[in-house]
Amino acid sequence: MRAVMKVDKSPGIKVMDTDRPRLGPRDVLVQVKATAYCGSDLHLYKWDGQAVKWNSPIPRILGHEFSGDVVEVGKNVTMVQVGDLVAGETHIPCERCYMCRTGRMHICENMKIFGVHVPEGSFAEFAVIPETIAYKLPPGTPYDVGALYEPCGVAMHAVQRAAPNPGDIAVVLGCGPIGIYVQQIMRALGSDVIATDIKKFRIEHARRVGAAREVIDASEGNVVERIKAATGQRGADIVFEAAGAGSTIIQSLDIVAKAGKVVLFGASPENPTLDTTTYIVYKEIDVLGLTGRYMYSTWDRVQRLVTRGLIDLKSVVTHTFPLEKAEEGFQLLLRGDASKVILRP
Amino acid sequence: MRAVMKVDKSPGIKVMDTDRPRLGPRDVLVQVKATAYCGSDLHLYKWDGQAVKWNSPIPRILGHEFSGDVVEVGKNVTMVQVGDLVAGETHIPCERCYMCRTGRMHICENMKIFGVHVPEGSFAEFAVIPETIAYKLPPGTPYDVGALYEPCGVAMHAVQRAAPNPGDIAVVLGCGPIGIYVQQIMRALGSDVIATDIKKFRIEHARRVGAAREVIDASEGNVVERIKAATGQRGADIVFEAAGAGSTIIQSLDIVAKAGKVVLFGASPENPTLDTTTYIVYKEIDVLGLTGRYMYSTWDRVQRLVTRGLIDLKSVVTHTFPLEKAEEGFQLLLRGDASKVILRP
Amino acid sequence: MRAVMKVDKSPGIKVMDTDRPRLGPRDVLVQVKATAYCGSDLHLYKWDGQAVKWNSPIPRILGHEFSGDVVEVGKNVTMVQVGDLVAGETHIPCERCYMCRTGRMHICENMKIFGVHVPEGSFAEFAVIPETIAYKLPPGTPYDVGALYEPCGVAMHAVQRAAPNPGDIAVVLGCGPIGIYVQQIMRALGSDVIATDIKKFRIEHARRVGAAREVIDASEGNVVERIKAATGQRGADIVFEAAGAGSTIIQSLDIVAKAGKVVLFGASPENPTLDTTTYIVYKEIDVLGLTGRYMYSTWDRVQRLVTRGLIDLKSVVTHTFPLEKAEEGFQLLLRGDASKVILRP
Amino acid sequence: MRAVMKVDKSPGIKVMDTDRPRLGPRDVLVQVKATAYCGSDLHLYKWDGQAVKWNSPIPRILGHEFSGDVVEVGKNVTMVQVGDLVAGETHIPCERCYMCRTGRMHICENMKIFGVHVPEGSFAEFAVIPETIAYKLPPGTPYDVGALYEPCGVAMHAVQRAAPNPGDIAVVLGCGPIGIYVQQIMRALGSDVIATDIKKFRIEHARRVGAAREVIDASEGNVVERIKAATGQRGADIVFEAAGAGSTIIQSLDIVAKAGKVVLFGASPENPTLDTTTYIVYKEIDVLGLTGRYMYSTWDRVQRLVTRGLIDLKSVVTHTFPLEKAEEGFQLLLRGDASKVILRP
Repeated sequence: MRAVMKVDKSPGIKVMDTDRPRLGPRDVLVQVKATAYCGSDLHLYKWDGQAVKWNSPIPRILGHEFSGDVVEVGKNVTMVQVGDLVAGETHIPCERCYMCRTGRMHICENMKIFGVHVPEGSFAEFAVIPETIAYKLPPGTPYDVGALYEPCGVAMHAVQRAAPNPGDIAVVLGCGPIGIYVQQIMRALGSDVIATDIKKFRIEHARRVGAAREVIDASEGNVVERIKAATGQRGADIVFEAAGAGSTIIQSLDIVAKAGKVVLFGASPENPTLDTTTYIVYKEIDVLGLTGRYMYSTWDRVQRLVTRGLIDLKSVVTHTFPLEKAEEGFQLLLRGDASKVILRP
Repeated sequence: MRAVMKVDKSPGIKVMDTDRPRLGPRDVLVQVKATAYCGSDLHLYKWDGQAVKWNSPIPRILGHEFSGDVVEVGKNVTMVQVGDLVAGETHIPCERCYMCRTGRMHICENMKIFGVHVPEGSFAEFAVIPETIAYKLPPGTPYDVGALYEPCGVAMHAVQRAAPNPGDIAVVLGCGPIGIYVQQIMRALGSDVIATDIKKFRIEHARRVGAAREVIDASEGNVVERIKAATGQRGADIVFEAAGAGSTIIQSLDIVAKAGKVVLFGASPENPTLDTTTYIVYKEIDVLGLTGRYMYSTWDRVQRLVTRGLIDLKSVVTHTFPLEKAEEGFQLLLRGDASKVILRP
Repeated sequence: MRAVMKVDKSPGIKVMDTDRPRLGPRDVLVQVKATAYCGSDLHLYKWDGQAVKWNSPIPRILGHEFSGDVVEVGKNVTMVQVGDLVAGETHIPCERCYMCRTGRMHICENMKIFGVHVPEGSFAEFAVIPETIAYKLPPGTPYDVGALYEPCGVAMHAVQRAAPNPGDIAVVLGCGPIGIYVQQIMRALGSDVIATDIKKFRIEHARRVGAAREVIDASEGNVVERIKAATGQRGADIVFEAAGAGSTIIQSLDIVAKAGKVVLFGASPENPTLDTTTYIVYKEIDVLGLTGRYMYSTWDRVQRLVTRGLIDLKSVVTHTFPLEKAEEGFQLLLRGDASKVILRP
Repeated sequence: MRAVMKVDKSPGIKVMDTDRPRLGPRDVLVQVKATAYCGSDLHLYKWDGQAVKWNSPIPRILGHEFSGDVVEVGKNVTMVQVGDLVAGETHIPCERCYMCRTGRMHICENMKIFGVHVPEGSFAEFAVIPETIAYKLPPGTPYDVGALYEPCGVAMHAVQRAAPNPGDIAVVLGCGPIGIYVQQIMRALGSDVIATDIKKFRIEHARRVGAAREVIDASEGNVVERIKAATGQRGADIVFEAAGAGSTIIQSLDIVAKAGKVVLFGASPENPTLDTTTYIVYKEIDVLGLTGRYMYSTWDRVQRLVTRGLIDLKSVVTHTFPLEKAEEGFQLLLRGDASKVILRP
């Protein structure tokens, strides 16, 4: 089959022929119909420090956000059938550790990330996943939408961690795809949303397809003053840090109201120096971290909003390519000229 | 001043002259601009069993849902000023009991209800209330809207007790004014709402101004089957019992999903016989009671949704009268031909 | 192997030879070392209305609370090994329904109860269970203690539903084994515990081994007055209804404080008539139902308190018999002359 | 009256005669019977950077943790009577701001701190406080115990923020008086407690009177390894940062388990640099800040545990002096040779 592969540790990828991955007794074989680029695919493309840290096996097929049709199942599979339309959960839990056994498989102590730790990903004609991470989509779900349940799940998980109250004012720092989804979900839940970013492309995109009352260009400065002014000086009830930068983490503590909540889920390359006493202790706030999403309750919540039309998963898609043109997608993303890019194998 | 009074225990009211109520040192005098009928005013009009149980003093001025302008303040008043636009909280807490001291003034152990226990209410040109129960409205709030914060507060409190999750399916049993508000709030929070009632007037009204996907005429039977069908046989995530009847309380336990929540706030004249084992224990549900609203956090949440246009408090108003025509309002409500009726003194 | 069996629908049991149950590919075979009588075993012994309702297959082996050693595992088993010391979870979930997929396997929509719906139980030399319901006990756990994790799990689940605050006053209605465990857990968590029962044997037993400050003989009346007196007239912060009777459910609503919690988990044969308006709405309480326990987070919490000596699971055991004398255990329990009875096959 | 005063900005105090503070209409005059030194008194004594930042008025009477008898009340006082035994809440809220009106007076937007912002404190024969911050103690409470409700309230608030689950493993970083109280409360609630400190005096004191299973001397290093070893490598379910140091804040994120909680309430002079991505995002933890305590629900919870003997407030008192020897108390504390010191005016 054709696949987008990483064959060595130099930057770049190759679209080439490779064997279909092998099907274990509790695995399912999916014919991939749509698969989206995630930031981690860029790390692997560049083979930067993060890629080295992951110790990702090479050669490998990239990609992990996808949807498609089940075309074969292992002999012990009981929950999925040939013909099912599924999306793939990226996290492969051990099902044995303390976290897995107490309801938090998504932060398994022995987690393997599909598309990172296992050698085969979803940028290919076919992908194999354990049945435990195949999420059955409602019949009729467009493939592109199905491929985007996974990143939207992170946004939903962030919102559920925040547990908004009616009419909360929420600030979303960062207008990448997940930031956009957080904005859409929060608006669907009756919150008043303000967003920020520093990249022109993202600011424009958020203004066009996002759900924020206002999208602030943070490169112009004065973010803190503008948020304070927009909230009667109280600050935001909830701040979502979706930018993954040291400066926005520091900002999040400043713009949150007393007794408010800061939700952290962006992976930041810098470690911020924080005045925890002034901003966490004296303001009595909650700083809530999260990664991934619950299996499967978060997915179910995404499905509820998507099927009722309250959020639009495709709104973040700016480009779509066939598998053979995978390089173009990488180039667009590396230049910052795209939000979500989808491959259709 | 002119006032709508109850002078003896026979049914009916009199619109007549009476003295302005006296202003204590921590009280405020409000010129009433809009005041709404509540179900308790009907009990007092009829002087039925409920009225006898309240042991409400006579002669008295009826009414407790209102807004108006502060025209005089007692000498120890510190939180309200002449000229403030205020709505009145109905509950007068003792500020001393265990409940008052631990954050729950609204269920004070020694509660007095304005318009029920104190002899003067709001169906009059002027009303006196302690400053602690005067809620300052945002400048520019229409008086009719201000008078309706109080009943909407019950709806908001019910929703906050339910703590909905994103995309929950909610059933609201009862389409009176508070039921309508619950429907509006839940839709504003992204829930999928189904409503029921048995009265034609209310069903029509809910279909016109409510926020439910579907308003079921419960007099046609099969409510349970219809709710199950509409929820993939799972039942509703949340059921709000806003009808105040034994039969709807029983129904609420039946139509709620496993691990769901039933929120009770309607005062029911009948005591239902409940299969608690099948419906509460084995379904592992929460049955959550509530009365009134928090002072003042609930009011703040109403204000947030009202000022952002997410709920429309006036949508439940079907009739408006001058004080002198108060009898007409009572007759309409007793016949079931009105939702919310407002007097403008 | 020898087993305690129900061979027809007349009252009674037979201790007899029967085949070992068959081992499926994801099952484990356990040599049963200790197994305890539960109330449901009495229903099956008598073959009363409850047994008929369950439609339990006959002939069958009774029993479901047990511990023992794993002696063989099916070929697809991955989480349990031969030699592991395990206790059995009674609930066999489908792992496919909405409840199972969203973290609540213990209230699976298609639940099978081991020892009730499946023909083989634990009152035998060997038992077969799916690996998913085998809970690995800490090495060195006495078999009797291991067999009692399951009923203690119900008590722990009840306590976690109640989410006690520091220093809460808790009333436990009912001093059967689970009631005793609730008392012990609540005392271990710093609560002030008052218990009630009407049976002399249980009252004596609770006074001897329980953890309540006071055990009230409810047959003498005045329970409500005594609880009110003991709580400064406020009532209990939390009431656990562990008696499973219509009268104690009614009582629970009366003796709980305003804003308090009533936790229901006893299966009551009668349906109580409740004044929900006075006791649930106006007191603004939570009525919280529950059944079984979470897999496996509740078990983990039991393990934490047991291994640290904060609760004593064996304290409820009043009698122990070999399998051949199973009839004696039934007779003691039917007469009300025992708390927990254990069989050692 | 005699009082411990700060008359200028040079280090030190004077015990001298001064006027009794004036009684306002909603104030109460308390004859101080016991008053304890807090860390903020040391800042004022030394007049260090923190004191400068507070802009505390001079001349002033020090002290704010105290109990005593009400000897006079202002003419509008309604909640306290002459003869009442009271302790003083340190925080004087405005009762008007958003925080005050929505249940969080303890983090009032316009907070004044008694003993810091107002010129008269409790290191004197008499003190004046608004009736709203006078907490009536149970009759018979020893004065020393009454004076310690306030610091224990911080510990209780920290524990309630953490909302421990049954059998949680808690690590308390810091064995000052509040750290000791957290240890005692957590043990009373059934948790397994490990404590750390770097000062010999505090380590010895914690081992003698604390409630920790183990008190680790953090100056010997390897704290992280020892905590991991003591928790089966999982880390602590809850970490309380009671030391107020940048290094312990960093440590708290390292030693908490996945999905665990870090509770911050120590005021740290240094701003730590934190790897929020590794420790907050990927571990999915909650970092919960807090200051002071709820008025009055936290006090009520302290009272419940104290009156039932589950915690021993006097256990932290190492020295007691008459007012005239206030200097000795300061010297002991500045040398680190005392835990809690009490003055008896």
